[in-house]
Amino acid sequence: MPKLRVHNVSISLDGYMAGPDQGPDNPLGVGGGGLHEWAFATRSFRVTYGMGGGDDGIDGIDDLFIAEGDAGIGATIMGRNMFGPIRGPWDDETWTGWWGDDPPFHHPVFVLTHHPRAAVTMQGGTTFHFVQDGIQAALERAFEAAGGNDVRLGGGAATIQQYLRAGLIDQLHLTIVPILLGSGERLFDHLGDGPIGYTCTELTSSASVVHTRLTRT
Amino acid sequence: MPKLRVHNVSISLDGYMAGPDQGPDNPLGVGGGGLHEWAFATRSFRVTYGMGGGDDGIDGIDDLFIAEGDAGIGATIMGRNMFGPIRGPWDDETWTGWWGDDPPFHHPVFVLTHHPRAAVTMQGGTTFHFVQDGIQAALERAFEAAGGNDVRLGGGAATIQQYLRAGLIDQLHLTIVPILLGSGERLFDHLGDGPIGYTCTELTSSASVVHTRLTRT
Repeated sequence: MPKLRVHNVSISLDGYMAGPDQGPDNPLGVGGGGLHEWAFATRSFRVTYGMGGGDDGIDGIDDLFIAEGDAGIGATIMGRNMFGPIRGPWDDETWTGWWGDDPPFHHPVFVLTHHPRAAVTMQGGTTFHFVQDGIQAALERAFEAAGGNDVRLGGGAATIQQYLRAGLIDQLHLTIVPILLGSGERLFDHLGDGPIGYTCTELTSSASVVHTRLTRT
Repeated sequence: MPKLRVHNVSISLDGYMAGPDQGPDNPLGVGGGGLHEWAFATRSFRVTYGMGGGDDGIDGIDDLFIAEGDAGIGATIMGRNMFGPIRGPWDDETWTGWWGDDPPFHHPVFVLTHHPRAAVTMQGGTTFHFVQDGIQAALERAFEAAGGNDVRLGGGAATIQQYLRAGLIDQLHLTIVPILLGSGERLFDHLGDGPIGYTCTELTSSASVVHTRLTRT
């Protein structure tokens, strides 16, 4: 059975997936960029984004987790706020994501939105589809597009929370980064008494961060 | 300079220091006992509490952290809710803590409370003093009683938050336990945009948990 997987979600020691004062000029909030430095340092991340250099960490653990996030994935779902900073109707259809002309997906990407927009075909095999009829419909379309491969769910926090509440995520790889953000957007929020039905099945430290995995039981 | 230190504070992966529905019969809340299993398994904890057995973990890391929490400590401060389940005036002065006739402190312990009560001398060197004039006064009395040694701050979450907001804690050893509690009492809450002035200076995994240390900068 193909799975819905979440990978490389980074939270601060105090639980935030983004810092305070998020906005177009600061999509990760104040200090939020520090959540992703561990990823930028890995070879797999730099290869994916066409950057040179990078090491795979003292023990290669970080690199393995980054690489795993791309393995066996046939489609991606993301919230609109991960796709771009624009809110409301798509008045400006020139926005095609943060990732340039050849985004690092190379497969169909389903963007959750309340506002209609025609699909956009990018270079390198990525097509952005805009889904208006909810998380369940997006998941069905993504599984169909993935053709037997798994589907990856991106962020942000609100999108992951919706899928967690619905119990639709099969596994979630979470990285705890040893910084404090003080306030912002928490991953473990708006979940009632949840995430119900998930247990932590892995706990591994690299030199930089802690990797954990939640699995639906 | 003697320091104010916090040790072995355990939080769940979703950030809770106690689970939901805390009460006299369930002081750690539903599921909260799971936060302390790693400690119970260490040799140092079992020696302190007069229990037999225990191992020091696959790599001894957990045991080292537990032992460190007792080293060089001359006095302890704790919130009233850590001392016992009774709220309001001390109508029943027979309550002398959760720890029996010979508590594992063996030094003066200062309990924060709004209600007056005479000091209680226990076996083995522990005396409970009840401090009504606030966290600063308790700290001064504890430093004086410690006679040049450090002071340890116990819980619960509200007590630690008060001292963090005031910037009075020198270092805080925090353990992240790979369980999910869903709701309850968070450590990183009621801190404004804080803890301001603290950085994470250590990140170490044992086979069971993650140890981190916050240091005042």
